Parts: sequence; C-alpha cells; structure tokens
Amino acid sequence: MALYVQKFGGTSVGSTARIESVADKIIAYRNQGHDIVVVVSAMSGETNRLLALAHDIDSQPSPRELDVLLSTGEQVTIALLSIALQKRGCMARSFTGGQVRILTDEAYTRARIREIDDKKIRSELAQGRVVVVAGFQGIDEEGNITTLGRGGSDTSAVALAAALKADECQIYTDVKGVYTTDPRVVEDARLLRSITFEEMLELASLGAKVLQIRSVEFAGKYKVPLRVLSSFEDDPGTLISLEDENEMEAPIISGIAFTRDEAKITVSGVPDVPGIAYRVIGPVSDAGIEVDVIVQNVSADGSTDITFTVKRQDAEQTRQIIGRIAEDVKARDISLDTKIAKISLVGVGMRSHAGIASKMFKTLADESINIQIITTSEIKISVVIDEKYLELAVRSLHSAFGLGGES
Amino acid sequence: MALYVQKFGGTSVGSTARIESVADKIIAYRNQGHDIVVVVSAMSGETNRLLALAHDIDSQPSPRELDVLLSTGEQVTIALLSIALQKRGCMARSFTGGQVRILTDEAYTRARIREIDDKKIRSELAQGRVVVVAGFQGIDEEGNITTLGRGGSDTSAVALAAALKADECQIYTDVKGVYTTDPRVVEDARLLRSITFEEMLELASLGAKVLQIRSVEFAGKYKVPLRVLSSFEDDPGTLISLEDENEMEAPIISGIAFTRDEAKITVSGVPDVPGIAYRVIGPVSDAGIEVDVIVQNVSADGSTDITFTVKRQDAEQTRQIIGRIAEDVKARDISLDTKIAKISLVGVGMRSHAGIASKMFKTLADESINIQIITTSEIKISVVIDEKYLELAVRSLHSAFGLGGES
Repeated sequence: MALYVQKFGGTSVGSTARIESVADKIIAYRNQGHDIVVVVSAMSGETNRLLALAHDIDSQPSPRELDVLLSTGEQVTIALLSIALQKRGCMARSFTGGQVRILTDEAYTRARIREIDDKKIRSELAQGRVVVVAGFQGIDEEGNITTLGRGGSDTSAVALAAALKADECQIYTDVKGVYTTDPRVVEDARLLRSITFEEMLELASLGAKVLQIRSVEFAGKYKVPLRVLSSFEDDPGTLISLEDENEMEAPIISGIAFTRDEAKITVSGVPDVPGIAYRVIGPVSDAGIEVDVIVQNVSADGSTDITFTVKRQDAEQTRQIIGRIAEDVKARDISLDTKIAKISLVGVGMRSHAGIASKMFKTLADESINIQIITTSEIKISVVIDEKYLELAVRSLHSAFGLGGES
Repeated sequence: MALYVQKFGGTSVGSTARIESVADKIIAYRNQGHDIVVVVSAMSGETNRLLALAHDIDSQPSPRELDVLLSTGEQVTIALLSIALQKRGCMARSFTGGQVRILTDEAYTRARIREIDDKKIRSELAQGRVVVVAGFQGIDEEGNITTLGRGGSDTSAVALAAALKADECQIYTDVKGVYTTDPRVVEDARLLRSITFEEMLELASLGAKVLQIRSVEFAGKYKVPLRVLSSFEDDPGTLISLEDENEMEAPIISGIAFTRDEAKITVSGVPDVPGIAYRVIGPVSDAGIEVDVIVQNVSADGSTDITFTVKRQDAEQTRQIIGRIAEDVKARDISLDTKIAKISLVGVGMRSHAGIASKMFKTLADESINIQIITTSEIKISVVIDEKYLELAVRSLHSAFGLGGES
C-alpha cells in the first residue's frame, strides 16, 4: 500500500462533469488499496472571474484581500470533489489550506510554505478517508489567508508529498507528460518516460511549461518522486526523479526547449574595464526587467560588446534605459533585435559526453542557420538564432540527436 | 463615538457597483467618528449558483461539504468590500467566520452560534480599521466550517453586536423598514419608526418578512437595539427595541400581518377524550409538517372538532396522513380548505386595552366577512377567513385602527 498525493489542475476540474471523472480516477487508485491525498486548483476560469471582480473596484487591490478573494476558488473545488467522491461511496473530507494547516510566510499573493502539520491528514487517512486539500493557499502565523501565486497548487502538492513522505506526487494535467520537444513543432516528439529534476528544471524554465518551476525545485530538494500525467488518458506519463536512479541508461540529450518571446540587445564598443557589465545590466534589473542570457566576449582593442536578452514585451523599455546610460558607459552603438529565438539542448548525459556542442553547431551549419549567441551550462547548451529558422532548427536537432519515435 | 454593527444583505452587495455604494455609506458613518463592524452576505445569486454546482453532482450533498462550498460566497464579498473601502482611503480588513472566531455547534447547514471571541475585532477597531466580517458562517470546535442557514447573516450581525455590546445593530435591506402592513395591499401603509421585539417577532413570523426571526429573538435576548433600514435610501428606518423604552406612547396596534399560503383541515366528530388532539396532530408533526393554528372547541355531545392549518404545499400530504388515522380516531368527517387567508393584528398596547378583539370582529362583520377561526395571544389576534376577502379585510382593519398616513 502506497501513499500518493494527486494534484488536479484547473482544466481537469473545469466543470462538474470533469470533477466527477476526477473522482472516478481517484477511486480507481483507492480501490488498489492506496492512501490518497488530493490537491486541487480552482475550476478553470474561476480565478480570472474573481480577479475581474476585484479589478472592477480597484486596479491595484490590496494583496491581503486579493488572497482572501482568490482562495475561495480552490475552496469551491474541494467541496465539489468531496461531494462527488462521497456520492460514489468513497469516504472523503475537504480541507482548506488553513485547516490542514499549511503555514506560510506573510508575503501575500506569493507566499512561501514554511511548514505543514501532517497530523490532521494522517488521522483522516487512518480513518480510511481520501483527503481533499485546497491547493495554492495557506495561512500565516497570524491566521491570515495567503496564496502561493499562480500555479501554486503544484507547489502545495509537492510540499504535502514531502511532509507526508509520500511514495509519489502525481501532477495531472492536460498533456500526457514531458516531451523531447514541443509536439506542435516536431511531429514525432517523444514522450519521456523519465527525466531528472535537473533536466526538468532546465526544460521548464526554457519554455516546455508543464510544471511550475518552484514545485520541481521543491520536489528535487525533498527527493519527492514527481510524475506528470494526463487527467484525460490512461498513461503512466513522465516520472521526474533523482538522477542516480537511471544514470546508466540516461540518454545524452533529454529534450529540446525553445522560446521565441525574447529580444536581444547589444551594447557595442564599451570600454573593457571592471564593473562595466554591472553598469550596463544593473539599471535594467533595477527596473524589474528579467534578463536571461548575458554574453560578453573577450576584448580585442580595449573595448567590448555586451549582449543580453529580455522578454520581448520589455524590449522597448530596456532600449530606453540603455539609451539613457549610453553616454555614461561610453557605448559606441546600441542595437535591438526582436526577431530572435532561443533553442536549448538539455541532458544530464552531456556531462560525460564530449562533442555534443560541436554536433549541435554542425547540424545548424548544415542547414545554413547562423548562430548569434552561444551559452552553455553543465547540462544545457543554448543558442540564439534568427526567429525564422526556429522550426527548421528544432526539427533538425531533434532528428540529429535521435530523439523521435515511440516512447 | 458609538460602535455600530452594520449588516448588508445579498441585494445590497449584488454587484461591484453596489459594493462601492455600500463602501460610501459605511465611510459616511465612519467620518462621524464611529467604530464600524460590517457583516455581509454573499452577492445575490451566488449562493444559488454554488448550490446548483453541488446539486449537479449529488441531489443530497454532504452538509459538511455544502458548508465548505457555500461559505465561499460571503468570503468573496468581504474581500471585495474591503478593497472598495481601502480604495477610498478607509483602513479596513476582512475576516471569515473562522478567523473572527465565531464558534458554533457542529450542526452543519443550520449551526447555532456558541461564542464569539471579540479580542481580534476590538484590536482591529483600536487600530482604526473598519472590520468586515463574513456573515452566515462560523467554525466548530474541531475547526470545521459551519453555516447558520439561509438568512443567517442577520443572526451573525446581531451576535457580533451582542458580543461587542454595540450601540446599535443596523440591518440594511431593500425596504425602508417595517410597515404597519404590506404596502402592496394597503397603499397608505405607514413606516413604523419603532416597534418592540415582541411585536416584531409576531409580525415576522406571520409574513411581514423583513428580518430573520432568529436574529430578532437573539437581539431581544441580548437587548441589542436593532434597526432595519434601506441600503438605497437615506432614511432612519425602523428601530426595534425593548418595549419599556416607549411603552407610554405605544400605539394599541402596531401592524397587521397576513398570509395566504396556508390550508385548513378540520377533523370533525372525534370523541372528546384526553389525548385526542395529540393523536390527530402527532402524526402530522412526525411527518415533518409544520402545524400553525390549532383550534379545538368545547364539546357539545361528547364529540369535538379539531381544526388546524398547515402550509398549503403540505395540504395534500396532510390530508393523506389524516385519512390513514381517521378510522383509528373515529372521525366522522375530514375536510380540507385551501382557499383561506390568515390575518393577525399585533400590538403590545393590546395588553392594556380592552375591546380590540370586538372592534376587529365588528370591522369584518361590517364588510360581511365571515370569520372561520379565531385564535389569540397576549399581543396578537388572528382570524382565518375566506381568501377572496383578504385585501378587503386588511384595508378595512388598517383604516379602522388608524394605522395609515405619514410616519
């Protein structure tokens, strides 16, 4: 008998009919003799409906009251799912974040979980009940309602699984699992049966958004086996676990992530002196703009070029900021390119395999695709190219590294 | 500086625009230097929307989960109202029933308040905040969410006013206050400026439904001055208070209540022996049917007639029950009349004034209206008549007792 924490997102509980299907799925596991803790999100659309009500009144509502408001979304779902389970003769009981109790810090709308009291849940499980917990929410020391931010239900599920030392945390979603790349771009993208936390972190942050990144970090830290699978199909999905479990057979490359929502800014001819990178990037970060790739080449003539990428929506503001400091940093030129794409190869196997980078560059060269920027980490190689070659590049790389086919 | 508890019902907070008007109203009081605790209901329609979701899944959902579900309605309103108050520069903070904490028994969907901890509210008021509390809900000893039943927000408001020893509990509604009778029937029905708890109880239970009856009982018990007034108009409304406050000037009759949703059943010719009333009425009550008026006349020939009224919707079921016991109680005949109306004169002044009953009977006789049943209590005289004379009877009595005109 195992203990599973199962998380169902907004689409999976988007209507009463879907909530009833979720109940059936839970009962199928329950009937195998497992203990089940379920974490649910708000029904899809509900959070936006509530936000619209608040914004109708004030464009900048108080974060504390926003959390009181939004937390009702999950509370509705836990009640409805418990009703559906009970109707099927399955003993079940709902709990809000505060009731469990999921203790967080006081950072309204983006709280971090501090501690979970597992006594209540263990006692409910011991009485043979399925425990249905509202995701996304908690309570601070003072008893104020807090929320973990969008997608926080994944984090709730992983945190509960860690606190309960669950055998597996299953994240049900509207995709079958994690693929080698986006199946909309590469037709024979393969469903990965397993992947390491590190690889998942690189893939998630790079655009293959299946799981909330914080929940993957959390799962890795507490060594909670995480499984991503479909609410609508019967398929074991993708298991995300510690790397040593299947290091032996680890493929060199696990997946190819890409994004086309970035823009590239190059500040040329600045003096190659200590602190210059900070003087260029600092003002951008200070404006709350997230900087992704940063490259600075070795200098030739005492001056250097600094290139970095930001989200495309921040491009214009970034250009203005750089424009204001251009004279100060003695920049010769500033250029902005919004028509770029970033592609990343990810795989723990890279660590022990040479030649991955050169194979990647050759594959792109064979297609006459020019590489604008290169950055590498231990388990990832990223390149920035002209946006119009994105699909071609992804397909060529996917095929060159033999990622396609049946899983 | 006074402390007011102000309660706004579902219609008063039925949209974000109305919630903003409520915020303006609260701030007007606040600016006079008063401390304010606000109790709100769910936005109109919300409770029904949530109930429909539950019934979509199960026609008989678990009461515990129903309370988890329905309590979200008020939670949405407290957040939105707090946001509206803060936008206007008024410090405010929302609290759920559990956060306050309003401790109840464990009777889900119809819980009774046991205790209210006033410390939290007093500390918030001391910090200059308006305190916004979710009506209708509480929490039991175990931390489970409970609700007080429909209309329970009135009870929450009165209970909070009692716990805080508030100067007044103001119930804002969509009518201007309590009238001498229904203004839809009698055009010059007068708005009562004051009325006693006892009179209000008789009027409320008889059909002039402005306030939830439990809240009036509660207010009377804890001597909380209660005021009914309009959310939409500027008018002091009706003050409901202890009778001694204005006994001197008390009018003889305060109001005329009536109902046409009852049916009359007469069981004739039963033996006039001890226990006969119980043997007739007992089976009806046992079936969960509420019996209102019961009359049994002195017996003439060793047999007697028992007449009673029930809600019209229960009439057919009641006739069947009586049919089954007819032989057992040796009834000669059973008759059912669904075309009746009940009219009640209410007033504490009746106690010290003779001749009210005879004046009532004469007024009806002058209009050739036959009286079928008469029952009296200390501050009320009720008659049952043919339904078709209802409007005529109410108007004649209203005029005969001089109830009309400007208040």
